Amino acid sequence: MPNEMQTPDTFSIAGRDYHSRLLVGTGKYRDMDETARAIEASGAQIVTVAVRRTNLGQTPGEPNILDVLSPDRYTILPNTAGCYDAESAVRTCRLARELLDGRSLVKLEVLGDEKTLFPDVLATLKAAEELVKDGFQVMVYTNDDPIVARQLEEIGCIAVMPLAAPIGSGLGIRNPLNIRTIVENARVPILVDAGVGTASDAAVAMELGCDGVLMNTAIAAARDPVLMASAMRKAVEAGREAYRAGRMAPKRFASASSPIEGLFF
Amino acid sequence: MPNEMQTPDTFSIAGRDYHSRLLVGTGKYRDMDETARAIEASGAQIVTVAVRRTNLGQTPGEPNILDVLSPDRYTILPNTAGCYDAESAVRTCRLARELLDGRSLVKLEVLGDEKTLFPDVLATLKAAEELVKDGFQVMVYTNDDPIVARQLEEIGCIAVMPLAAPIGSGLGIRNPLNIRTIVENARVPILVDAGVGTASDAAVAMELGCDGVLMNTAIAAARDPVLMASAMRKAVEAGREAYRAGRMAPKRFASASSPIEGLFF
Amino acid sequence: MPNEMQTPDTFSIAGRDYHSRLLVGTGKYRDMDETARAIEASGAQIVTVAVRRTNLGQTPGEPNILDVLSPDRYTILPNTAGCYDAESAVRTCRLARELLDGRSLVKLEVLGDEKTLFPDVLATLKAAEELVKDGFQVMVYTNDDPIVARQLEEIGCIAVMPLAAPIGSGLGIRNPLNIRTIVENARVPILVDAGVGTASDAAVAMELGCDGVLMNTAIAAARDPVLMASAMRKAVEAGREAYRAGRMAPKRFASASSPIEGLFF
Amino acid sequence: MPNEMQTPDTFSIAGRDYHSRLLVGTGKYRDMDETARAIEASGAQIVTVAVRRTNLGQTPGEPNILDVLSPDRYTILPNTAGCYDAESAVRTCRLARELLDGRSLVKLEVLGDEKTLFPDVLATLKAAEELVKDGFQVMVYTNDDPIVARQLEEIGCIAVMPLAAPIGSGLGIRNPLNIRTIVENARVPILVDAGVGTASDAAVAMELGCDGVLMNTAIAAARDPVLMASAMRKAVEAGREAYRAGRMAPKRFASASSPIEGLFF
Repeated sequence: MPNEMQTPDTFSIAGRDYHSRLLVGTGKYRDMDETARAIEASGAQIVTVAVRRTNLGQTPGEPNILDVLSPDRYTILPNTAGCYDAESAVRTCRLARELLDGRSLVKLEVLGDEKTLFPDVLATLKAAEELVKDGFQVMVYTNDDPIVARQLEEIGCIAVMPLAAPIGSGLGIRNPLNIRTIVENARVPILVDAGVGTASDAAVAMELGCDGVLMNTAIAAARDPVLMASAMRKAVEAGREAYRAGRMAPKRFASASSPIEGLFF
Repeated sequence: MPNEMQTPDTFSIAGRDYHSRLLVGTGKYRDMDETARAIEASGAQIVTVAVRRTNLGQTPGEPNILDVLSPDRYTILPNTAGCYDAESAVRTCRLARELLDGRSLVKLEVLGDEKTLFPDVLATLKAAEELVKDGFQVMVYTNDDPIVARQLEEIGCIAVMPLAAPIGSGLGIRNPLNIRTIVENARVPILVDAGVGTASDAAVAMELGCDGVLMNTAIAAARDPVLMASAMRKAVEAGREAYRAGRMAPKRFASASSPIEGLFF
Repeated sequence: MPNEMQTPDTFSIAGRDYHSRLLVGTGKYRDMDETARAIEASGAQIVTVAVRRTNLGQTPGEPNILDVLSPDRYTILPNTAGCYDAESAVRTCRLARELLDGRSLVKLEVLGDEKTLFPDVLATLKAAEELVKDGFQVMVYTNDDPIVARQLEEIGCIAVMPLAAPIGSGLGIRNPLNIRTIVENARVPILVDAGVGTASDAAVAMELGCDGVLMNTAIAAARDPVLMASAMRKAVEAGREAYRAGRMAPKRFASASSPIEGLFF
Repeated sequence: MPNEMQTPDTFSIAGRDYHSRLLVGTGKYRDMDETARAIEASGAQIVTVAVRRTNLGQTPGEPNILDVLSPDRYTILPNTAGCYDAESAVRTCRLARELLDGRSLVKLEVLGDEKTLFPDVLATLKAAEELVKDGFQVMVYTNDDPIVARQLEEIGCIAVMPLAAPIGSGLGIRNPLNIRTIVENARVPILVDAGVGTASDAAVAMELGCDGVLMNTAIAAARDPVLMASAMRKAVEAGREAYRAGRMAPKRFASASSPIEGLFF
């Protein structure tokens, strides 16, 4: 066995180590049972929950997602999906902290419009700054701009989560070079968030050097969500191992003398 | 558990069922030990061996690959790598059959030139015809032309193996639409052979509906071949499961009314 | 003015020099008038005509395409569209030669099936051999396989015409590396034939070093065929000039030390 | 002639109509003479000049670019290349206004770092706001984020100029869907700025519906800049005409019933 296969390959968020690099959401499933089975099959240890759409206890008497996803077993990552300005995002994080016994880990997203669901990076930077000052540990959804990613890190966000493609699009990684540049510059974990559509997309994200991938629709909207969750688990592991294994240099032909000879004309 | 996860998902070659859809070669490793460990990590059940480059017993007194890869455990798939005309390919298959106790399963490849290693499909068709008449069970390496693939099937080849990209290039699937068309038209197994470079490439091949993937350089020329073999095993499983799970329809935005609205302009 | 702009940049087919590198077909237009105006706007000097679908005189009393496209002004290139075997293609070429006063220039296409319209390269090679022996000057439609392209050249074809994508698909160049390889190996003109969808596709074909581009649907099925013909004329010239001008080396960043540093991961 | 070819197809910047949609820079040429010949061949009517690198009169006694590029003939567009914060960018615009007799048209760029030359959109938004208040007519370089583009328009910028790829990279349009979304949402002209490498890239930008393209390195760093300038002129015209002509719908095969049937799997 090589060293790489013996060393545990984990990454760390807010002081806790995780071996699973696949983070999942809870939206769009048929029912609570399918949600639970898909999350189980995904192997995820971190599950994100939209505070404005899911009952974490704010509506007493209704089914509570925490009854299905025990905080003892999963890291519950409350997110601000559905917030279109900094103020409501900050308010939503504070509500989540209360509902989750003072836990300060949140995923911030401030969206720019309802049609594209692209982030509003200006409002995101503002909200991130306020949340960090208020003691939150902020994982942050953003576009794939390397400068914005660096600014979010400088503000004190503990993880930066650039989009692969628009939320819910399933288009895969539209701009791998940008994701790669973000990874190369970062000193905090980089996780691709949004836009993954199928297993190979998740593998590509990991091969680019990302620390993890977060997804929801790609699993929930598959014909068989539980089987797709299993596919995604393996794809993330495959991409991670390929990244660590160091892929062969691509060449036009086996006989080429230079690795990338002639790939552009 | 959904039905898909309970049913064994196997494919059949020459009357035998295989659960592993990753086929590997034995070339370019540092030594026999690394070869064995990488093949072990890949989970492959079918291992292809270049008859003209590897000792299957034709050179007595030299190390024999069959001592490392037991035919009891692996299906040994002799191939005609290094043959540039139909006659030498046919002759090589006959030699392999003798060395392997009359087993008639072979992988035919007839190459067009030493620089590109593209197949010579005209010579391949000719050799395939002769081999089938002579009782061989022919898996055949070819280009990604759907008409040639159909002709090889009509001749009686038991599996058609289109290239993803030139042998040893690691460029990944250059023309997914052609591979898809070959898969849609086929009544025999289609396996992508040659050109895979990293894990996501293997996943893509399986997501296109291929029955399997054969590779050698992508594993052997990785910095850590054993870890890459593990990555490829998971990637092939991930891609297969994603294919069976039925991926979400890609859309420009979650809010789009039509699945692929506006993806071309 | 640099030398490149002073030298006439022509290419030669069957002993005649052409300055226009855009070849067009005559199918799918609304009427003869639109056909004529689009061809005029394209600047084409070579126009291909499907012998089995167009009246070149074989049906006396019907409108004759040669009345609209004078052989004095245009090189009429009869083609074998609609032929699915070598014999009918050869027969069609002989008919064309008779109708065109013994002119022996033809475009050979032998298709593999009606659904994909991919060429049958085996039948194409056979028909090409027979036509060359019979004194024809054969321009030949083929797939994008570099070995097949070389074999067609060796048989004596005077131009090789690989597809960009399936006929009538408008998908653009699916495998630029294959086209590039064909160009690098060739000693006869290489013209991309079939699959171009818009102006940039035609420019890409020329930037890969092709000698010309042949198209029909991309012009005829545009909303405004005459304007699209003008666009294609300029795109072919633009791509050709860019090829001759020698493009800058792509780099990840202006500050990168190596031209293609890090474009694959 | 169709209507489209008769109507003059111009676009408007700061109240003036332009028929050329190719804007060029003046950097990286061998000498003033090559600069002038390339700009001539490009057909550009708007020429951008880096105020911090080029003498517009601020260094008396040195050669002045305005002697080569007469403001009577060209619209001189001073830009803030080399500025890494809002303040220096604003100051540079004010200097330009003085040097150019009070003309208030500027191209704003505020860069994020020297390695990637990506824009700092936060600083750009700030500088744009200040410049608009100060009476400038601001064309603004930005990333390809549709929300940022809309915010720059709302601030009052008169044209938004998203990058195709990093400045000086020549990588072409990395994320066509983002550019398309920006175009669809805009009420001001959208011009692709930075990253174009060859003629087809420029054609693609125009086919996406952009109003124009600005480039410098792709011309200046070509082996023959003057010929490349001519190629770019034709490519921009070709892409624009193709956009107006309405391209055919792409399909997998001519026989497909739906335009984009099966392009994703």
